[in-house]
Parts: sequence; structure tokens; C-alpha cells
Amino acid sequence: MKVYLAGPEVFLPNARAILDEKIELTRLAGFVPVCPGDLEAPASLRGKARGLATSEVNERLMLSSDFIIANLTPFRGIAADVGTVYELGFMCGRGCPAYGFTNVAVGHFERVRDYYGGELAEDAHKAVRGPDSLELETYDMVDNLMLDGGIENRGGVIVRHAAAPDALYTDLTGFKECLAIAARRLLG
Amino acid sequence: MKVYLAGPEVFLPNARAILDEKIELTRLAGFVPVCPGDLEAPASLRGKARGLATSEVNERLMLSSDFIIANLTPFRGIAADVGTVYELGFMCGRGCPAYGFTNVAVGHFERVRDYYGGELAEDAHKAVRGPDSLELETYDMVDNLMLDGGIENRGGVIVRHAAAPDALYTDLTGFKECLAIAARRLLG
Repeated sequence: MKVYLAGPEVFLPNARAILDEKIELTRLAGFVPVCPGDLEAPASLRGKARGLATSEVNERLMLSSDFIIANLTPFRGIAADVGTVYELGFMCGRGCPAYGFTNVAVGHFERVRDYYGGELAEDAHKAVRGPDSLELETYDMVDNLMLDGGIENRGGVIVRHAAAPDALYTDLTGFKECLAIAARRLLG
Repeated sequence: MKVYLAGPEVFLPNARAILDEKIELTRLAGFVPVCPGDLEAPASLRGKARGLATSEVNERLMLSSDFIIANLTPFRGIAADVGTVYELGFMCGRGCPAYGFTNVAVGHFERVRDYYGGELAEDAHKAVRGPDSLELETYDMVDNLMLDGGIENRGGVIVRHAAAPDALYTDLTGFKECLAIAARRLLG
């Protein structure tokens, strides 16, 4: 079974080393790893054409994969990396199993509450809203309900692990646990 | 043809009014509108079970739709709402056409640059990185390349429109333009 390894670690200076580590762990767990970057857009392409070609290559890699493990650690803000989330949705739309992990143990509601500095209020319908009047999801979830739901409703799990701040995108504890759970459920 | 209307306007206090306006515009353009919330999770469900059931309902609505128009306006930070992005990926993974709009005209690169207060540096391989060493995509795109690529590589477009700050999630100029473009390409 082939697993697509999605996550914002592609933006790290040592992306290659981390991806190689994930690839090695994936093989050890009994799966065939597929990574963004396994195929590259033609070197001659520049600018937006290169971005579009990279998207096409990554989609082709996803189409060759049987399930996904997504790194949902908050990225440049309080939510998961949107590139990774697109890929999670893409694989779920194809009907594939999905697993996720996050290196921030604090849940979605708490992160949004802190984003608003705790200034929350209940409206007449008991919806909880920030000072900008936007509603908060009050469920015990890792991120927006479409992400948690997409994974859990397909029988997957999202592993939460509080990584050290300097290992936010390199700590693979949650990833390893995803591999172990996926191996029990999908192999054998 | 049925179109799934994705976007963070579901979090507005006047969500129902905005969704009704989108529904009306969609019918006028010749499409059948499908909205998150058209079906609701059973009222008896509470907490996380309710969140998971809502995800399931929304996925069922997407499976009944032929294409998507996604509101990619940045939400609680510099990137699109991750719930909407999951839905965009989901529909693209099913092979459906996709259109998007944003009410912030400033592009992805510029938003990330501003997030870093302009403190960018080129590494030895000419990759542009923030002070946290994470790489920036330097393409002229609305958001992460998977979003722009997913839409444009399927023949869709992302309409950019600079809405007034107090109409960030209610201005439907870009949405109307998406409907007009989709009608020309998909109908008739």
C-alpha cells in the first residue's frame, strides 16, 4: 500500500533530511512512501508556471497513493498548512483512508480563543463568537471540523503530541504513531 | 448542474442571509446551489459527535455536487479557511471543476512577507526564507500552490477583488464573477 506523506516540512531548510527520515520510517512500517517532491516540475519552468506544474505533479503522486498521513501542525498562524489540508481533502474526496498528527497539543477551540485574546461572547442562540462576531467551533477537535471529521469518519485518527518549540516541524513522534496505527488497521 | 458553495461566511452572525443571497445568485446563473447547512446534523447530538456528524453531512452534500465555488478570503490569519480548503481539495480529488474568489487582492507571497515583517533572506539555493527559516512560495498566486494549481489546472479561475474591510466576508462581487465565468464554461 502506498501512503502520501503530506506536511509543511517541505518548507524546512533540511526538508530533504526530514522527508528521507519519514520515507525510511514508512518503509519500516510496511508501506510504500510517496512524497511531494518525489517528482519535480521541469527545471526550465519559472514563476507561476512552475507553481502550477508542481501542483500537477503532486496531484499525480496523490492519485498513485492509497491513503494519506497529514502533518496538521499549525503553520504560520493557528491553523494547519492549507497546502496539506488541500491534499487531505483531495485524498478523502477519492475515498481513501486518512490519518493525521499535530505537534501542538492545544486544540482548535483553545487556539482560536487565544487568537482573540480570550474575548469571547455567547450570542442569543448560544453560539460562541469572537470580537469580530465570527463563530467559533466549540468541539474538542484538532482543527476545523471538516479536517477532524474527514479523518475520523473514515476510521482514521489524529495523534496529538506536544513537541518542543524548536522541533515543531521535525518531531516525528506523532507520525510514527500514525504509521503504527495505520499498519494495524490497513495491513495484515 | 449542482454547485457546492464553500466559504467561511457560515461563521457570520448573518450567515443565513448571506447564504440565501448566494443561493439566489446561483439560481439566476443557471445552477442548482448546494450549501453547507442545507442538511443539519441531528439536533440531539452534542459536542464532538455533532462536529463529526456535520462533517459527514457536508461531505454528502459535496458528493451530490458537480463542481465547487470556494471563498478563499484569508480567515483568522494570512491563509484561506482550512474548512473551505478541505472542501476544495475534496471536490478536486473527485475530479470536479473548481472556482475560487478572494476579497483580499494582496497575493500569497506578499501576505507571508508581511507576516514576517519583511524580514526575508535568500539561502544558498536562492530559496526565499523567513526568520524562522521556513521557505516562501514566490509565485504570483492567491494562496499555497496546491490551491491555485488545483483550481487553474482544472480550467477554473480565482477571482481577486479588494473588498471594503467591513465587507470582507459579505462582498459577493468575486462570487458573482465566478458564477458568470462558470456559466460560460460549464453551461450552454
